Amino acid sequence: MKLLLASTSTLHGGTYLDYLKSSIRKLFSGCSRLVFVPYARPGGRSASEYSEMAEARFKEFGLELRGLEQFEDPIRAIESADGVFTGGGNSFVLLKTLQEAGLLEPLRNRIRQGCPYMGSSAGSNLAGLTIGTTNDMPIVHPKHLDALGLVPFNINPHYLDPDPNSHHMGETRETRIREFHVFNPQPVLGLRESSWLEVDDERIELHGPLNARLFVRGQEPVECPAGLLALPRF
Amino acid sequence: MKLLLASTSTLHGGTYLDYLKSSIRKLFSGCSRLVFVPYARPGGRSASEYSEMAEARFKEFGLELRGLEQFEDPIRAIESADGVFTGGGNSFVLLKTLQEAGLLEPLRNRIRQGCPYMGSSAGSNLAGLTIGTTNDMPIVHPKHLDALGLVPFNINPHYLDPDPNSHHMGETRETRIREFHVFNPQPVLGLRESSWLEVDDERIELHGPLNARLFVRGQEPVECPAGLLALPRF
Repeated sequence: MKLLLASTSTLHGGTYLDYLKSSIRKLFSGCSRLVFVPYARPGGRSASEYSEMAEARFKEFGLELRGLEQFEDPIRAIESADGVFTGGGNSFVLLKTLQEAGLLEPLRNRIRQGCPYMGSSAGSNLAGLTIGTTNDMPIVHPKHLDALGLVPFNINPHYLDPDPNSHHMGETRETRIREFHVFNPQPVLGLRESSWLEVDDERIELHGPLNARLFVRGQEPVECPAGLLALPRF
Repeated sequence: MKLLLASTSTLHGGTYLDYLKSSIRKLFSGCSRLVFVPYARPGGRSASEYSEMAEARFKEFGLELRGLEQFEDPIRAIESADGVFTGGGNSFVLLKTLQEAGLLEPLRNRIRQGCPYMGSSAGSNLAGLTIGTTNDMPIVHPKHLDALGLVPFNINPHYLDPDPNSHHMGETRETRIREFHVFNPQPVLGLRESSWLEVDDERIELHGPLNARLFVRGQEPVECPAGLLALPRF
């Protein structure tokens, strides 16, 4: 199983996927049937608008990508893909669309067979056990929150540290994740922007200039430096 | 129908409910069977811990409040309440608990009969049409997102303006609400911290030092000053 799971598609001041270029080329090297999952629809744009954007960018990287909405039989498209990229946006919209199209199971199977998978933001969230640690608004209501479960934990993308100067009284991200653990057992990895994971079967490596923050139920959160991640069984 | 719907229970640097004291006293004046709905469980605390906190504060305001978890028959407690306060926390946990206990309909009926209702944060979110504009994490999965529908719009509590100095690439609150409107027709009222609504049947008044931000599908958002709110039919 080969995964690339990024906290964000775009760094502040950067361009779409630019900082991930070499990792993307490495992950998808030699792939000719690359499929894009556009269903998170950031900003509410249509699936085809979103696919156009991702396809154009991948073309600049020398990779041919095709949006899933262009296939008459999306399940077959997934089953015969040799690479899949799920873009960011709204995790609820993404999951609900995949559920209704019956695509979750085929996608999970295909990736477990070795088809390289890349996700950014909501697409990374989808690779965890559930989307229960998304930052998104529940603008639609999926049947359940179970995700692909490609890694044995939940991901919180765009992880944000508390701002000591803030006067805002809404919950911090850390408080939200602690509340998650009152009701859910699995570890949660807070992936800060500019961080990404590279997964090669059981081997999970953190990349980028920042630590990730790991939340294990009943324990104090810990900072994980770049490199191999040591994850607890739960 | 008499409602007090606050964006937040506590102002930065303030104490619990302090800034709402005179509005609370006015709303619940003469009420002797005041019930607290503790199910949003902020910070994951137990219902009884949360009720103790709210009861103690109300006592200081000269009001006797009793947590719903203390009643053998919570439905009857709601049906005979002469005032209800739902505290903030996690909107998903709040709604799911109310759904499972069969409390949504009795609560809605009782408030429509004229029983004064106060909500803060998640408790205000609950007064809208759905909880689809909550900022909370989906740490549990309710059956549906339909809320009490006491006002003809959705509420976004703790509304936050975009920070021009932020380098964070996660969606702004405004972007999230615009995405909500791709999938949902109802107006959304962004209630900034320190703002609250006082509702007297059809009459909806904004209170506090700040404007609220009103999002109507297909239109540019508008700033609403304190005073009577003019809301579009949708």
